[in-house]
Amino acid sequence: MNYSDLADEKSGFEDFLASCEHAKKVSLLATVDGLLQWDEQTMLPAAAGDFRAEQAARLAAITHAQRTQKAQGERLEKLAESSLATNGPEVVQATIRLLHEDFQKQSRVPGKLVEEIARTSIEAQQEWVAAVEASEWEKMVGHLKKMFSLKRELAACQSPELDPYDALMDDYEPGARWRSVDSTFSKLRKALAPLVRGCFESTKGPQDRALRGVFPLQAQQVFVRQIIEKIGFQFERGRLDTTAHPFCSTLGPNDCRLTTRWDEKFLPTALYSVLHEAGHGLYEQGLPVDWFGLPPGEATSLGIHESQSRLWENLVGRSPDFWEWCYPLARKAFPESFNEVTSDQLAEAVRSVEPNFIRVEADEVTYNLHVMMRFDLEREIIHENLAVADLPDAWNERFEADFGRRPPTAREGVLQDIHWPAGLIGYFPTYTLGNIFSAQIMDAARQAGVGLGEQIRAGDFAPLLHWLHQHIHASGRTLKSEALVEKVSGKSVSEKYLVESLYRRYGPLHGLSADPAESLV
Amino acid sequence: MNYSDLADEKSGFEDFLASCEHAKKVSLLATVDGLLQWDEQTMLPAAAGDFRAEQAARLAAITHAQRTQKAQGERLEKLAESSLATNGPEVVQATIRLLHEDFQKQSRVPGKLVEEIARTSIEAQQEWVAAVEASEWEKMVGHLKKMFSLKRELAACQSPELDPYDALMDDYEPGARWRSVDSTFSKLRKALAPLVRGCFESTKGPQDRALRGVFPLQAQQVFVRQIIEKIGFQFERGRLDTTAHPFCSTLGPNDCRLTTRWDEKFLPTALYSVLHEAGHGLYEQGLPVDWFGLPPGEATSLGIHESQSRLWENLVGRSPDFWEWCYPLARKAFPESFNEVTSDQLAEAVRSVEPNFIRVEADEVTYNLHVMMRFDLEREIIHENLAVADLPDAWNERFEADFGRRPPTAREGVLQDIHWPAGLIGYFPTYTLGNIFSAQIMDAARQAGVGLGEQIRAGDFAPLLHWLHQHIHASGRTLKSEALVEKVSGKSVSEKYLVESLYRRYGPLHGLSADPAESLV
Repeated sequence: MNYSDLADEKSGFEDFLASCEHAKKVSLLATVDGLLQWDEQTMLPAAAGDFRAEQAARLAAITHAQRTQKAQGERLEKLAESSLATNGPEVVQATIRLLHEDFQKQSRVPGKLVEEIARTSIEAQQEWVAAVEASEWEKMVGHLKKMFSLKRELAACQSPELDPYDALMDDYEPGARWRSVDSTFSKLRKALAPLVRGCFESTKGPQDRALRGVFPLQAQQVFVRQIIEKIGFQFERGRLDTTAHPFCSTLGPNDCRLTTRWDEKFLPTALYSVLHEAGHGLYEQGLPVDWFGLPPGEATSLGIHESQSRLWENLVGRSPDFWEWCYPLARKAFPESFNEVTSDQLAEAVRSVEPNFIRVEADEVTYNLHVMMRFDLEREIIHENLAVADLPDAWNERFEADFGRRPPTAREGVLQDIHWPAGLIGYFPTYTLGNIFSAQIMDAARQAGVGLGEQIRAGDFAPLLHWLHQHIHASGRTLKSEALVEKVSGKSVSEKYLVESLYRRYGPLHGLSADPAESLV
Repeated sequence: MNYSDLADEKSGFEDFLASCEHAKKVSLLATVDGLLQWDEQTMLPAAAGDFRAEQAARLAAITHAQRTQKAQGERLEKLAESSLATNGPEVVQATIRLLHEDFQKQSRVPGKLVEEIARTSIEAQQEWVAAVEASEWEKMVGHLKKMFSLKRELAACQSPELDPYDALMDDYEPGARWRSVDSTFSKLRKALAPLVRGCFESTKGPQDRALRGVFPLQAQQVFVRQIIEKIGFQFERGRLDTTAHPFCSTLGPNDCRLTTRWDEKFLPTALYSVLHEAGHGLYEQGLPVDWFGLPPGEATSLGIHESQSRLWENLVGRSPDFWEWCYPLARKAFPESFNEVTSDQLAEAVRSVEPNFIRVEADEVTYNLHVMMRFDLEREIIHENLAVADLPDAWNERFEADFGRRPPTAREGVLQDIHWPAGLIGYFPTYTLGNIFSAQIMDAARQAGVGLGEQIRAGDFAPLLHWLHQHIHASGRTLKSEALVEKVSGKSVSEKYLVESLYRRYGPLHGLSADPAESLV
């Protein structure tokens, strides 16, 4: 059911439509804030950071005031008690419930705190760029102390009934609770341990040498744009720009902006970050446009979002089928580097596994270890079992325990991610949840006959994208992530699909069994 | 006197500071609107125009509501009656007077109208891009009818005591009145007529052939950035991007964004539009940072703004002295095109004169004819002596009368400027006022020993820029344009400095006398 159909109804929906129109007006401001953030990370002159922080803080204060406007609260109270909330069309019921829940949660947060978080976030992100460049933890420690303390305050305000880490995680993955996430992660960790160890120890595994060479910036730009356009990203409704820490940002129903970084000597840096962000972008471009600014037009959760990005990046983009299709394009774009390399060699090279200090450059097999470590560290800080000042040591120790080596610099360690300076605390676990969801969703897709090898080899991505539009994108935020994955797969959410997928795709290549059970023995 | 010094004062300035803080908060929102506009013209995906119009309209409504907040009005009333307004420091007196005037003017405009103008402006600008591309007047006519009608309504609201065209012009050139502008323009027109005719008829004048060749985009980008950086544009406080209709936009005290378009076969397109916009940028970067968001930190008027852009573009940038300095850089950047051309040939080529359909590509001598024509046409529409639907004919007739030829397409005629779709009505005359001011200001500068040939030949632009900072930029909006020019030059404002400058620089080159009096005989 379209929003515009409801708006055409003559009666019975007046209060509902008034609430929705208010929410849509607020979302206009939220997207303007999105532009401030996007611009800050792609375009902003070096000296303009302080003023941008003031702009963002001001806009955040105004947006918060409008979002928590009394009249809207009263209307939503009334609606939540009305028959529409229990007997209306399903999408109307869900919208009322979610707008009401959002309103209650946001109304408990003082505007001053919202403003302060917005200001601190921009200031800390600006400083982060300088801190990474200089590899100086000291530049960040004050900003991070402030940010963690502000977010703890936020958690206590908005969801006082929840554990503070759960309260934060709930903003990104509605309904997720850390004990349950922790239990899933532990199982995943245990199941992956033999594969990780096996890959590290294997001398048979492929190296990424085939992907190193000369990749001129302009040729890369043309190449990656071509790839994601063929996959289905609509450039008339989006962009691709350069940044320090790749992200995807939605500034309107027809304005989805991807960003990446480039390495002229190593193709995967841009190729896989663009495939990843384009996966996010395909989700955003697939959400119901008509419901933009309202829950049915919003993403289910960041875990589901990540499932889409990882699906295109890894399950499609690192497959031999993909490289069979992509190889002629890559060879044409980079003749100098790929003239003597085969498609199979490239497909293997993109699945090399080795300890990497940098999460966003990590391979699929070890990636989740990076995430689990951040999940544990940030939770310990929020639970006040770890001090921000002790983060570098805690980071290095944990990294050494997991990967057998210590980051030589802060830049390759605790400083590498923008999330903490940006205030994205409770966000990291959604990356591994996304990996788990992606494997289970891809399994369901293949059972439905889409995303199959022969389609991908032929560059025919439309069936898979269409299926994702129908089964994942169309429901917006009206379902929670686990319910959605269960609905689409017909099975309980489990890490086992991810484990199987990784063993199947990485085991034999690295001289190991494809069967987790055999490796576990 | 710095704003921060006042803020440090312990007493007597409380109301003043409260008013200023409110005005600065409003200016934060105005700069966010600036970002929406800049982004719309440089970055926005093709399909995102409608939503951008909604964002801009929403923000305009909020900004207007905050700008005309009752408490601020009461505070300003009180301040205007206080002893500070008559006996305070000069900058405080001026700030009170201007904030109070602005407030009264803006309070008379309904928020709905502000919102409607903002929405229409973005919609019309989006459509303008398509209309120009297709060269279809029909695409624009409805938008322009609406815009002219909205601006007439605005004029009647904000300054009911003024002639409606004066009311609009007042937003861009405070205090300017059309009868007086018209009289100055008539004198200028008459004085330039023999020069224009002589240049058109002269067969001795230089051609721009020396400036045609191969100018690869990337080399141009490096070259123009280098030039404006040497002149004094601070890239850590600004940017340079690509757009359809070049402009300069200030999004914060350290965020001044220039834009240009490029022609890979003709260097002046980018070089002179960038020098022009950088002239605006040097002014913006030279305004008192401490007063940002308040009248002493704002530009005097658009005429003064244009005087700065035209000074750097024409009086500096088209001089043989400039080319003597610039020549080795140009030759290094474009060896293929400039290997057999001398510095003198280039300096002459940039002063070729010929009828051009496009204002922004017009030479200095004929440029003002383009402006006067727009000044007359838009005024006739506002005065309801001309219908928007009749604009194309009126345009073509007038153009033929002035230039002896008719624009073959709407793209080369009535559709060429973004101003009317953007709602910038009453803005055009500031271009010629700027030319008039620039010649008089440059005259004063040279008498003060800056901007001299030997400095420019040596690439030593700092003395001129420093002098402009001190004598033009530093006073912000606290003086009106005529008062400022009179103060800096010690003489009444007159078109004669421009006339003399044009005859001196273009006469002999085109086989005419350098003396206006002789040519007039």
